[in-house]
Amino acid sequence: MSNSTLSQPGADAAGLPAGGETLARLAAVARGELRARDWLEQCIARIEAVDERVNAFTLRTLARARREADAIDARRAAGETLPPLAGLPYAVKNLYDIEGEITVAGSTINRDHAPAAADAVLVQRLREAGAVLVGALNMDEYAYGFTTENTHYGPVRNPHDTRRIAGGSSGGSGAAVAAGEVPVTLGSDTNGSIRVPASLCGVWGLKPTFGRLSRRGTYPFVHSIDHLGPFADSAALLARVYDALQCADAQDPGCHARAVQPVAPVLEEGVDGLKVALLDGYFEDNATDAARSAVRMAGKALGAQAMVEWPDAGLARVAAFIITASEGGSLHLEDLRRRADDFEPLSVDRFIAGALQPAHWLARAHRFRRVYRERVLALFSRWDVLLAPATPVPALPIGTEWLDLSGATQPARAAMGLLTQPISFAGCPVVAAPLWPEGTQGLPLGVQIITAPWREDLALRAARVLERSGVAGPRQAAL
Amino acid sequence: MSNSTLSQPGADAAGLPAGGETLARLAAVARGELRARDWLEQCIARIEAVDERVNAFTLRTLARARREADAIDARRAAGETLPPLAGLPYAVKNLYDIEGEITVAGSTINRDHAPAAADAVLVQRLREAGAVLVGALNMDEYAYGFTTENTHYGPVRNPHDTRRIAGGSSGGSGAAVAAGEVPVTLGSDTNGSIRVPASLCGVWGLKPTFGRLSRRGTYPFVHSIDHLGPFADSAALLARVYDALQCADAQDPGCHARAVQPVAPVLEEGVDGLKVALLDGYFEDNATDAARSAVRMAGKALGAQAMVEWPDAGLARVAAFIITASEGGSLHLEDLRRRADDFEPLSVDRFIAGALQPAHWLARAHRFRRVYRERVLALFSRWDVLLAPATPVPALPIGTEWLDLSGATQPARAAMGLLTQPISFAGCPVVAAPLWPEGTQGLPLGVQIITAPWREDLALRAARVLERSGVAGPRQAAL
Repeated sequence: MSNSTLSQPGADAAGLPAGGETLARLAAVARGELRARDWLEQCIARIEAVDERVNAFTLRTLARARREADAIDARRAAGETLPPLAGLPYAVKNLYDIEGEITVAGSTINRDHAPAAADAVLVQRLREAGAVLVGALNMDEYAYGFTTENTHYGPVRNPHDTRRIAGGSSGGSGAAVAAGEVPVTLGSDTNGSIRVPASLCGVWGLKPTFGRLSRRGTYPFVHSIDHLGPFADSAALLARVYDALQCADAQDPGCHARAVQPVAPVLEEGVDGLKVALLDGYFEDNATDAARSAVRMAGKALGAQAMVEWPDAGLARVAAFIITASEGGSLHLEDLRRRADDFEPLSVDRFIAGALQPAHWLARAHRFRRVYRERVLALFSRWDVLLAPATPVPALPIGTEWLDLSGATQPARAAMGLLTQPISFAGCPVVAAPLWPEGTQGLPLGVQIITAPWREDLALRAARVLERSGVAGPRQAAL
Repeated sequence: MSNSTLSQPGADAAGLPAGGETLARLAAVARGELRARDWLEQCIARIEAVDERVNAFTLRTLARARREADAIDARRAAGETLPPLAGLPYAVKNLYDIEGEITVAGSTINRDHAPAAADAVLVQRLREAGAVLVGALNMDEYAYGFTTENTHYGPVRNPHDTRRIAGGSSGGSGAAVAAGEVPVTLGSDTNGSIRVPASLCGVWGLKPTFGRLSRRGTYPFVHSIDHLGPFADSAALLARVYDALQCADAQDPGCHARAVQPVAPVLEEGVDGLKVALLDGYFEDNATDAARSAVRMAGKALGAQAMVEWPDAGLARVAAFIITASEGGSLHLEDLRRRADDFEPLSVDRFIAGALQPAHWLARAHRFRRVYRERVLALFSRWDVLLAPATPVPALPIGTEWLDLSGATQPARAAMGLLTQPISFAGCPVVAAPLWPEGTQGLPLGVQIITAPWREDLALRAARVLERSGVAGPRQAAL
């Protein structure tokens, strides 16, 4: 059997529904038919076999992983009922605190920091759910990038073509799942940093509603836009992991005191009766044929009824850029003053410029955002599910500087976020679904399944429809 | 009988509890023993008799007021049970929308705006509660000031000494109640604009929790700090008006979707068992003997048990200034560019400077605020009610530029907010209670009754204790 936990969409060796291999393993651990330790060792072997080529991991926490896996097996042996994700190997973007490890957040500067005293809340949640932490993953420095061409740690390489980018800033998180190294990872998404690597690597990603998950114990980037969320090798698993991550955290003022809303009970309800539409205008204009084709495939499978306009997408991107640069620059200002040369050369100038923008720009961007959110909410009074490409193009070659898009030449790295930035700026939840349109030389391209705030259930139901029908899902990487 | 609705603290002509005269009138209207129209005409007569000297009103809505009063009387005559504030005359700071009137917000620039299409939400609330709108009140231009020395409309004059300031920016709202023109007004408070005029005019004021009341239909100043709230001639009435104002407003994204928490049922529960303390450090240092004396009087009546330190008060004031200047400057930037000479000369330079501050300052101020709020919340895990002066000094003569305070010379206008800014920056609810300490030449000086967010009930219970015991309450102005 393959070391990979990935399966072909629509076809599964064990005869399970698409995307079910990892779920089958979870069930096997629960029944005592698969040892968590054996599953872990298969993952470790896969990481050792392929990560030199992928460069997803910056830290392997193998001693801890083996302790956690053995503890699961001991509990099963003692007759305990195991928690829902028992034995599931996972890894986290290296901005999540891991007890006893330094949270580098893609930088070398943070190596001077003390090791974390405790796990990040979401790592605690997964630990309590029985998952097994295998390591920390490469990212753009301080999450400021869409390509994970990290100068300090080297670029993450796309498992489907290692000459190409994996997307970013959670590039390691997308690539580790796509390479079959672990079936689940955690990432963060401010302007697209989960959805872009999910799109380019061909895996499932979820950026929940702004404020849904606790961010306590993660290294921040842009407090007023940062989201955390999971990647997974199936939509069904993505929903299970999301359910395990949800909790109200009174100690994180950025986490809404909203009751947990488990998605699992409604996941198979389908999309009959839901009003589904494709986004046109900005989202068509800033896409290639391949991206438009991916969205049409998803729209057809979900019964999309119309093309609709998302309000003020271009302005939202501008405002998101302003807030990102200002808050990010402000956060790092002391280090920018003292040791600018130690920063990532690809983003340091944007940090400096951001801190020096006039306050008026920042205040106005926040003011615009309030009006914008209302306009977006109004759109969701008429529609339940909206679809758009996650990236304009499939994965570009590493080092690409410029991109021609609908007749305009754009900076390639920034252009990767063209279609994700407006959505996260409104705080809406999005599942990035991996599709494989024609004309991409076999590369994947993601589709954003966008719903109203707090309606992760609808986005995941739609994702599951795409998964069951074989329209979306990861494919084995030729590593 | 006096035209004034004010009574001496601890002594009421009708033998009612202190502050009860307006409540007695409300009861009389409800029973059909007092016509709303008669009450209104008494108010109008008082306004006509004294407002030339006070300059609280910038607009009198007498035709509307008479219609509203007559409608109340007609409903009573028809045997209807009247709503809770039936017949209550009130007026609003001229930044509240009044249907058919231009919302000038203390400016001449806004005279170019279209008349409001609808009443502000809080005006709608009071209308539905049966209150009668008498007019709009003077304020610092665009709410940027603590003295209401409005160059366009003239200064509001303190009813207790018309050579002195009434405080601001809701100066007209404080003075109109102190002068006995109306028993209730509405104002707004970003950095102290309800509490400062309440203190200097000797009336009750409430700044609720940030996000508690809908701000829809009011002219904004600093979205991320603006609060609305009422003034009243008694603490009991303040609570009743506050209850009428509360509602969740889904159309105002700044209004928390929190259930209405009526205070009336618990208002008389006293403060036995509550942990009460006085704020020392910054709040003692930036106060005169009179202010310290007022706080001690309140603390004695409420059984204060200790002096405690409020965290980071000085830093909070700096951060509040930065956010205020930036957001305010950004809001008005187009007019500042085109017609700076039309602005209030006392504040225009601060608006311009605010828009030009580096974005880093603004981002950092917001970042500080999050940490600050957590520290303040921690303080309220140990204390229920905290007391501090509302202003360092009683009302200053109009035109005062400089103030000596604990050995330091400070700009007098800004210094009026020294003790209020840190509290509103944390979003805590505050009742300003009018006290009359020794050594003020008969002028009032307010005490802030500060509680944890969403605990207006505790602040109003403590206010009611001070009222019943005669320690706090308005006094008749010698107009």
